Amino acid sequence: MVQRNRRRYAVGVDFGTLSGRAVVVAVDDGAELGSAVHAYRHGVLTDRLPDGPSLPPDWALQDPADHLDVLRVAVPAALAAAGVDPRDVVGVGVDATSCTVLPTLADGTPLCALPALRDRPHAWPKLWKHHAAQPQADRINAVAGDRGEPWLARYGGRVSAEWQLAKALELLEADPEVFDTAQRWIEAADWIVWRLCGRETRNISAAGFKGLRQDGRDPSPEFLAALHPALPGLLAKVDGPLAPLGGRAGGLTAEAAGWTGLPAGTPVAVGAIDAHVTAAAARCVALGRMLAVLGTSTCLIMNADACHEVPGVCGVVDGGVSAGSWAYEAGQSGVGDIFAWYVEQALPGRYADDARRRGITPYELLDSLAADQPVGGHGLLALDWHSGNRSVLMDHELSGVLVGLTLATRPEEIWRALLEATAFGARIVVEAFTAVGVPVRELTAAGGLTTNRLLLRIYADVLGRPLHVPDAAHPAALGAAIHAAVAGAAYPDVPTASEAMGAPHRETFHPDPARAAAYDELYAEYRALHDHFGRGGTDVLHRLRARRNRALRG
Amino acid sequence: MVQRNRRRYAVGVDFGTLSGRAVVVAVDDGAELGSAVHAYRHGVLTDRLPDGPSLPPDWALQDPADHLDVLRVAVPAALAAAGVDPRDVVGVGVDATSCTVLPTLADGTPLCALPALRDRPHAWPKLWKHHAAQPQADRINAVAGDRGEPWLARYGGRVSAEWQLAKALELLEADPEVFDTAQRWIEAADWIVWRLCGRETRNISAAGFKGLRQDGRDPSPEFLAALHPALPGLLAKVDGPLAPLGGRAGGLTAEAAGWTGLPAGTPVAVGAIDAHVTAAAARCVALGRMLAVLGTSTCLIMNADACHEVPGVCGVVDGGVSAGSWAYEAGQSGVGDIFAWYVEQALPGRYADDARRRGITPYELLDSLAADQPVGGHGLLALDWHSGNRSVLMDHELSGVLVGLTLATRPEEIWRALLEATAFGARIVVEAFTAVGVPVRELTAAGGLTTNRLLLRIYADVLGRPLHVPDAAHPAALGAAIHAAVAGAAYPDVPTASEAMGAPHRETFHPDPARAAAYDELYAEYRALHDHFGRGGTDVLHRLRARRNRALRG
Repeated sequence: MVQRNRRRYAVGVDFGTLSGRAVVVAVDDGAELGSAVHAYRHGVLTDRLPDGPSLPPDWALQDPADHLDVLRVAVPAALAAAGVDPRDVVGVGVDATSCTVLPTLADGTPLCALPALRDRPHAWPKLWKHHAAQPQADRINAVAGDRGEPWLARYGGRVSAEWQLAKALELLEADPEVFDTAQRWIEAADWIVWRLCGRETRNISAAGFKGLRQDGRDPSPEFLAALHPALPGLLAKVDGPLAPLGGRAGGLTAEAAGWTGLPAGTPVAVGAIDAHVTAAAARCVALGRMLAVLGTSTCLIMNADACHEVPGVCGVVDGGVSAGSWAYEAGQSGVGDIFAWYVEQALPGRYADDARRRGITPYELLDSLAADQPVGGHGLLALDWHSGNRSVLMDHELSGVLVGLTLATRPEEIWRALLEATAFGARIVVEAFTAVGVPVRELTAAGGLTTNRLLLRIYADVLGRPLHVPDAAHPAALGAAIHAAVAGAAYPDVPTASEAMGAPHRETFHPDPARAAAYDELYAEYRALHDHFGRGGTDVLHRLRARRNRALRG
Repeated sequence: MVQRNRRRYAVGVDFGTLSGRAVVVAVDDGAELGSAVHAYRHGVLTDRLPDGPSLPPDWALQDPADHLDVLRVAVPAALAAAGVDPRDVVGVGVDATSCTVLPTLADGTPLCALPALRDRPHAWPKLWKHHAAQPQADRINAVAGDRGEPWLARYGGRVSAEWQLAKALELLEADPEVFDTAQRWIEAADWIVWRLCGRETRNISAAGFKGLRQDGRDPSPEFLAALHPALPGLLAKVDGPLAPLGGRAGGLTAEAAGWTGLPAGTPVAVGAIDAHVTAAAARCVALGRMLAVLGTSTCLIMNADACHEVPGVCGVVDGGVSAGSWAYEAGQSGVGDIFAWYVEQALPGRYADDARRRGITPYELLDSLAADQPVGGHGLLALDWHSGNRSVLMDHELSGVLVGLTLATRPEEIWRALLEATAFGARIVVEAFTAVGVPVRELTAAGGLTTNRLLLRIYADVLGRPLHVPDAAHPAALGAAIHAAVAGAAYPDVPTASEAMGAPHRETFHPDPARAAAYDELYAEYRALHDHFGRGGTDVLHRLRARRNRALRG
């Protein structure tokens, strides 16, 4: 009798770019009872390996040991904060950034953990924003196009340098010995799940979105051989058992039980991509509800009932968000990253001082100064390509552009132009969907940047649609917990769990008609600049980058 | 006998954008014996009149009382510093920024000094960089082109919004009452000379370069009437007696003698344009010696033996630098202004702190960090149009562009890209000369920015030529003093005085072949971007500015 009234809980763990966070939520309504964050000790490795050689431009690595620390530190801390009995936890779920991918031995040991390979950069996990494999991605696109590979159109006609294949080809070409030593080539989320339950699985979402698996098949050995004679060897490194989202990967091992403070045998959900589990947390699993996860980069996710080929969209995968629907993903490579770059590299000292004096962040100061600017009053227009373009151009060797500068241009004006540029970039994606008949019925924004009310107002105005914001402190981790609840059999499937446990709307931003009309005109300017610099009007951005890379090598 | 060994001196006074400076030099060799600077109390009025109404975007005014303060403060101070007997001064010369122009009564009283007109923005002197008359300049160009005005080709086919006619038409259209009240419409340098000697003169250099006077004629009344029925009335406001450079405008009045500490009757040289007198100071009066005066803006000056029509060059005027030669002027609207904008609006606080800690300026810090970057290593390219483009596009409604930004872009990289952009802009001008057969035999740089060695090295590399730097602390003021010596009959003409009194080379920067070759390629990229944004590839910069102006009015 007591058993029946006892509440049940789910644990979700979200592995971000700089830190991991764990939440404990109630299985019946998703309410968060406790959480904890743990920053990665090594953060993102961009300049050099720990005590090791320096890294070239465009590199971004992580240390897998930092991920295990999150399991050891943040999960017990979240359980303690929630004050729940670990025996009442029905399951634990994990999501991570993607495509973050690493080479391991057959038992899952990361190659970078082997003393002999520790100073070999290619032995380390390559973070999603490692962009050095663009030459490989270009060749993959050229060869796939020439051969008429049937899956290419599912990725908008271009695959990304961020994905498994480009990074694997980079590894093979740059360090064939590490490629040969790698027995597995696996997504970070799947690797963490493997560490938790002792059994390797591959979630169908990452296999589809980042591994190019379509209609039950990986890219063919013939295609891979056309890229490099040894590349077909990759297939044996990624052939781990596929598993659907919300599935049970296994039970917690005794070792992982020791790390987390959960009982051994606790169900472990199949791994998942951070933005995709957020769709469940934001109740955006239903058809036509687009979710924009606004963070360092932006991911746009939506379920639809059919498979359309959307030019320049990152991918469409059957069951990629929930079984029975086609999941579409699109994205923007740099969003919060660009804002952080601006504050770090271009904010005048007097602004930083002023923010400090007023006890607010530089972001809040800039927002407050930019908030009342009339649309177009700064005379500026920016292209949000500081980190390349993931959609719809799928080209990580593009770079940012800023036009309209005058001697009267103020910092808060550049700031607003950067916020707007990312909103224009999001509109490019939404229009790519609607242009091919994939209706976007509703828009919801989640992610760290939803604390920025000016940004959300600009997005509503630029996109000309209401923008919902879910009331969840840690939406990705909540999404992982929803998957954990399904893996633990508390719900039959992800859509049902999402409706029950997903967050209600905290707020809805409605577009202002006058501002939206003005932004329609500025968007036309953005689109023209976008096409000029990104679609062959000029190739100057590529040439500047190639020259930079040569100069820095020289 | 004692008389014969007594040294003689000349006084030069240079009226810049933010301050005026006076020098006392020896007549025999131009050696500087004393100098003094006086900053204008009101600086540049861009936001509002003193205790008056606010000003629209693109405005820049000065207070003529500030100019007289320089005569009262800096001239006596320079004489005192030199320790010379004022009776040994053979003459005083004046130069000023141009086209800085003001409306006055028939006796020279500035209209803004009249209490009834003090709050009328159009009654004030419009500084050279007042850019609000661009619509008027556009119409002047269109009408002159339609009518086939013969003088138009002497100005590269486009007149500037900075010049007398555009500013006069702006005055007439915006405040006809002030236009009617103005009995004279006069360059600042000529007005100061008038204050000194009590007699109005008009130097032929400004009359030609800024007043469109060619072949002994002002623009015709018919042409002016085609712009506005009342505009022919301007001719009677500018018909003051013309005078050649180095001529004697008159003798110092008793009042001006009281201001300056010089004897009444001391010869006063005809007024001149700052950059043009600098040519004399830098010994660049000889044919084919181009002088680049690098300051808030850049002026490029050269004498040649014939009149060619150089597309997009600011002007060619018979006797505009010295009698008997054709003077060519070209320029860049924003140079030091752009660097100052960057330091003011985009330099991170930690850089400012670091500079303070090391006891150097932010400019020096940025230069030191940028100095060793390999050419193209930043991956950036900028258009130096923050203050519009004076040559060869002659369009003050253009604006700055920055392309190639990445999340790894550092402040010193943007800094270097801005320095380089102004060098590319200078090369555009030099190539416009050589393209029509006006040979540029030698290059010399003067102006405030010649303290920046990195900038000079970049100019030598980008232009692919040796760059001489004269050894003069105050070259414009020295040039004014050279004119004073000619007015005082110490020399027969400006070329002779320039050879005797002009400064020797302090240093010559030679191009590095490898860097010059790399810059050749980057210059091709600059040129393509320049033509795309400035020559009709896209009109987006104009549309953004028009939208900004509408939004700020609205």
